[in-house]
Amino acid sequence: MRTVDLITKKRDGGELTESEIRFLIQGYTDGSIPDYQMSAMAMAIFFRGMTPEERANLTMAMVHSGETIDLSAISGTKVDKHSTGGVGDTTTLVLAPLVAAIGVPVAKMSGRGLGHTGGTIDKLESIPGFHVEIDNDAFLKLVNRNGLAVIGQSDNLTPADKKLYGLRDVTGTVNSIPLIASSIMSKKIASGADAIVLDVKTGDGAFMKEMSEAEELAACMVDIGSRVGRKTIAVLSDMSQPLGNAIGNALEVKEAIDTLRGTGPRDLTELCLTLGSHMAVLAGVATTQEEARGLLETAIRNGSALEKFKVFLAAQGGDASVVDEPERLPTAKHAIPVPAKASGFVASIAAENMGVAAMLLGAGRATKESRIDLAVGIVLHKKIGDPVEAGEALATLYANSLSYEEAMAKIYESIGIQAEAVHPPALIVGEVK
Amino acid sequence: MRTVDLITKKRDGGELTESEIRFLIQGYTDGSIPDYQMSAMAMAIFFRGMTPEERANLTMAMVHSGETIDLSAISGTKVDKHSTGGVGDTTTLVLAPLVAAIGVPVAKMSGRGLGHTGGTIDKLESIPGFHVEIDNDAFLKLVNRNGLAVIGQSDNLTPADKKLYGLRDVTGTVNSIPLIASSIMSKKIASGADAIVLDVKTGDGAFMKEMSEAEELAACMVDIGSRVGRKTIAVLSDMSQPLGNAIGNALEVKEAIDTLRGTGPRDLTELCLTLGSHMAVLAGVATTQEEARGLLETAIRNGSALEKFKVFLAAQGGDASVVDEPERLPTAKHAIPVPAKASGFVASIAAENMGVAAMLLGAGRATKESRIDLAVGIVLHKKIGDPVEAGEALATLYANSLSYEEAMAKIYESIGIQAEAVHPPALIVGEVK
Repeated sequence: MRTVDLITKKRDGGELTESEIRFLIQGYTDGSIPDYQMSAMAMAIFFRGMTPEERANLTMAMVHSGETIDLSAISGTKVDKHSTGGVGDTTTLVLAPLVAAIGVPVAKMSGRGLGHTGGTIDKLESIPGFHVEIDNDAFLKLVNRNGLAVIGQSDNLTPADKKLYGLRDVTGTVNSIPLIASSIMSKKIASGADAIVLDVKTGDGAFMKEMSEAEELAACMVDIGSRVGRKTIAVLSDMSQPLGNAIGNALEVKEAIDTLRGTGPRDLTELCLTLGSHMAVLAGVATTQEEARGLLETAIRNGSALEKFKVFLAAQGGDASVVDEPERLPTAKHAIPVPAKASGFVASIAAENMGVAAMLLGAGRATKESRIDLAVGIVLHKKIGDPVEAGEALATLYANSLSYEEAMAKIYESIGIQAEAVHPPALIVGEVK
Repeated sequence: MRTVDLITKKRDGGELTESEIRFLIQGYTDGSIPDYQMSAMAMAIFFRGMTPEERANLTMAMVHSGETIDLSAISGTKVDKHSTGGVGDTTTLVLAPLVAAIGVPVAKMSGRGLGHTGGTIDKLESIPGFHVEIDNDAFLKLVNRNGLAVIGQSDNLTPADKKLYGLRDVTGTVNSIPLIASSIMSKKIASGADAIVLDVKTGDGAFMKEMSEAEELAACMVDIGSRVGRKTIAVLSDMSQPLGNAIGNALEVKEAIDTLRGTGPRDLTELCLTLGSHMAVLAGVATTQEEARGLLETAIRNGSALEKFKVFLAAQGGDASVVDEPERLPTAKHAIPVPAKASGFVASIAAENMGVAAMLLGAGRATKESRIDLAVGIVLHKKIGDPVEAGEALATLYANSLSYEEAMAKIYESIGIQAEAVHPPALIVGEVK
């Protein structure tokens, strides 16, 4: 088999066979196929797409390019959740203890973030003492005992995907739906998921800005899941404005605690109940969405979700008292209100730009080596559709230095106010299963 | 400027500016732009094409990536000729002395071949003593004195093209008309041509098998030429069967001598008169095609073309007596007739396959390091349309070893005979200027 013939085949609209895809991915992983052939292939895929069979074969070839996690020691169906990324997305922090509280086993591999704010692990590390450096055995035991544990992502997981992603990033081949879909699905499957719930964001703050693209990506991933024996459901959710109110690491932990207590933002709560009920049904702890939703609402109301969060934190060395005393979380020196300059209705909150503002305050990482300031960020007091009076706070900016002018300007730039009333956007905009 | 942004621009159908193309080609030549970005760009160009401006800018960026030859010391308009390659193509050997005989200065840079037979230099080296290792000064003086000299191609000519061609070869991006056109034109322009006559082959033995592709390539090169101030004319010629009768190095030299004497194959003679008359008009030694053709026919008839060939050979150390005594050329040990197995009319002579047969005999190079056997090859006695009797020789196979079965089988496989009469194909199938 010659790589150039496979590139030509794809270029001319042919379908690669399973063994051809395996040859490509193995060769690329072991270095026998050079970057310059893989980038030409990725560009040919960008233009020609991939058939459903090709996408499934690519996913599994990437799964088998490295280590795969065996979660069979955990009883029950292991359901993983993945969000395609957005701004102020606190769902994982809420969902993990919430579904664990009703009996869905959560064995979560998570990463550090490269973007506007940190990843789930960064956020959790704002809780004093909490750590994810536990060995595999301890991890599995914790899930079996508490129903929930979080571990850092193995470096040996889907090395082909890691290498290919880095290459796509510099060769203009990121925006290929089959490549995005197989990248996401391969990581979930290699992490040991039996079933997968996907939260595909759409709108300004999402990777897929257009609804049609988000739908295509969702359909593509659900199809891959069904072809490789992992029941997959995708929810399409709005990311035209940030999700919830908080953008920033400790600020999002506090928001997660509020949500688990039943006093969180309406949109974040709703999305967690939607995703959580899908997870519960896939895990077999409920038979219908409605039943699952009832169980989750009860877990919030009766405190068992919050209790599960405390047990989880304590089991991994964290100071669980932050749950009842959130002032123990890292706190920024300055809390500066952002007053509205005019009265009217909030018409837009440019999510990506708000993320950039949080990043300017130090909440995110520009490179792998950057240090995150866990305390800083933004809390919104108004969302799209809310009425606002001139002088009233639109948001509060949390900063550790007084040079926050640029971030402040970004926030003003992001929030549009108009005289006419505005309909708030729908949160859940679609579902694919 | 970031390379990835240029790739994305091209990928999405944008037009690269002159400075963007210069940035790409300079960066690729000096190594600051890696192969994996250039191959993604080449694939994006494969799918999106290039505008006429982009093609001209790419050509000139490649010209300026290395040395350019200054032919201003030679008086007159320097017209170069390029054939897109085929099987048994002896035109350069005939054309160079033929047009020089009527006053068109020929300062030819030529290469060694990688293919079915050698390149022009390999063929000329079958003449005892002949060499192309002369310095630039001597080269220019010879052209001024004799009207004709051939020198080996400089290693520093269009390094960007050399590097890009190597990359395209292994990344499925060879068949891109703008990339092929700018590659050819950049080499001709860097070699110092003021005007260019192109012989674009079409048919089985050609690089462009389809007439429509050949036309597109011809139009593309003529357009580049006019945009960069090099008057360019393209002739489209048939390569559905080998050109002339000889395939093999010394065999083609002998055929060239016959043609210069007026006793060569009809098709080779015709093509040389057509290309030569275009060259003569571009060089200003004739005002019309008809006038030029008359001059060329006279040069053959009165022996001045053959005389020019002798002077040229002698000036570069060659034994000019081969012209009158061609038996002094390298001669194969075995001359084996290939008898027809049936009577009828020759319907097809698969040119590419015939080239492979010559290669099997040792006439060509598979890799740069291979040694060529200058004596071996094939001489056809029948061309498409000719009647043939069973047992009559279709061709003669010239071999230096007795293991020629495979080549013999290829020849039989290549020549189709049918009962019904066959129209010979037209030789000149189009012209673009």
